[in-house]
Amino acid sequence: MERIGSKMVYEGRIARVRIDRFRYPGGAEAEREVVGHPGAVAIVAHDDRHLYLVRQPREAVAEEALLELPAGKLDMPGESPLDCARRELAEEVGKAASDWLELKRFYTSPGFAEEEVIVYLATGLEDARAEPQEEKRLEVMPWPLEELEAAIEECRDSKSLIGLLLFRELRRR
Amino acid sequence: MERIGSKMVYEGRIARVRIDRFRYPGGAEAEREVVGHPGAVAIVAHDDRHLYLVRQPREAVAEEALLELPAGKLDMPGESPLDCARRELAEEVGKAASDWLELKRFYTSPGFAEEEVIVYLATGLEDARAEPQEEKRLEVMPWPLEELEAAIEECRDSKSLIGLLLFRELRRR
Repeated sequence: MERIGSKMVYEGRIARVRIDRFRYPGGAEAEREVVGHPGAVAIVAHDDRHLYLVRQPREAVAEEALLELPAGKLDMPGESPLDCARRELAEEVGKAASDWLELKRFYTSPGFAEEEVIVYLATGLEDARAEPQEEKRLEVMPWPLEELEAAIEECRDSKSLIGLLLFRELRRR
Repeated sequence: MERIGSKMVYEGRIARVRIDRFRYPGGAEAEREVVGHPGAVAIVAHDDRHLYLVRQPREAVAEEALLELPAGKLDMPGESPLDCARRELAEEVGKAASDWLELKRFYTSPGFAEEEVIVYLATGLEDARAEPQEEKRLEVMPWPLEELEAAIEECRDSKSLIGLLLFRELRRR
């Protein structure tokens, strides 16, 4: 199929909604409402004893804070996904990592939103020079590696769940 | 935290965007842009030989069709998630299942969208009475169970990836 037109119908602070027009093989055309998104990164960061998770209020979905991987949107112009991941790991949990591996790329909800997430594995951790940022109402949760199953059980965020499930598999190999 | 106000700022065919106002413990207040969503279901359906996957154009994110679990939005008033899953399994792959197990509930992108997905495992499959619906530009992909790893490798949709990763784990037990 081919995109043959696009019209912005709502531009908010995060959400941007477009109506795109597509032509399919055979000539049929259709319009689709698309929620724009710059993309995001999430990081499975661990040392010999802990995974570094965060607990964060998620106003869109829940009254309670959710258990998640450190993560962030690709909202700095010109910043690569890996640099964004380095910055978020330092800002959210105060760590720097010497080794980075891309685990997976996926779309969070490809039926209506263009958000793509890249999940990284980060190891060779040390304390970052910068202090974690305080203003995000985010609590750092050093999570014992041997309690990985409990994190998977509790986790209700797609990017974090995918990262933790892939990490469980890697640890078995 | 507590939601103390909500204002609809865009109502499209799928996307509805609200600005919600929250009060946090301690008294601070903040506004959040929230993309509304009715929720969705996805189904890991298999018999002794095959998983039943689908390939579907996803205009929001890609020129090519994506490999996914059968799935659908909770957009019929009064229909339960499980009834929605039964309907989608029949419509998309032409199967009925006698045994249903809820594998997981999660939010696809809790930073900005309220979409919650329930993933089911469906077994005891037989052909559904109704024919699969043709109009969705959706291709049914009976996928050999022994090639599950290749499906996980190819899959780039969060709900399908979570369903397949949880299914891989279940098969090991």
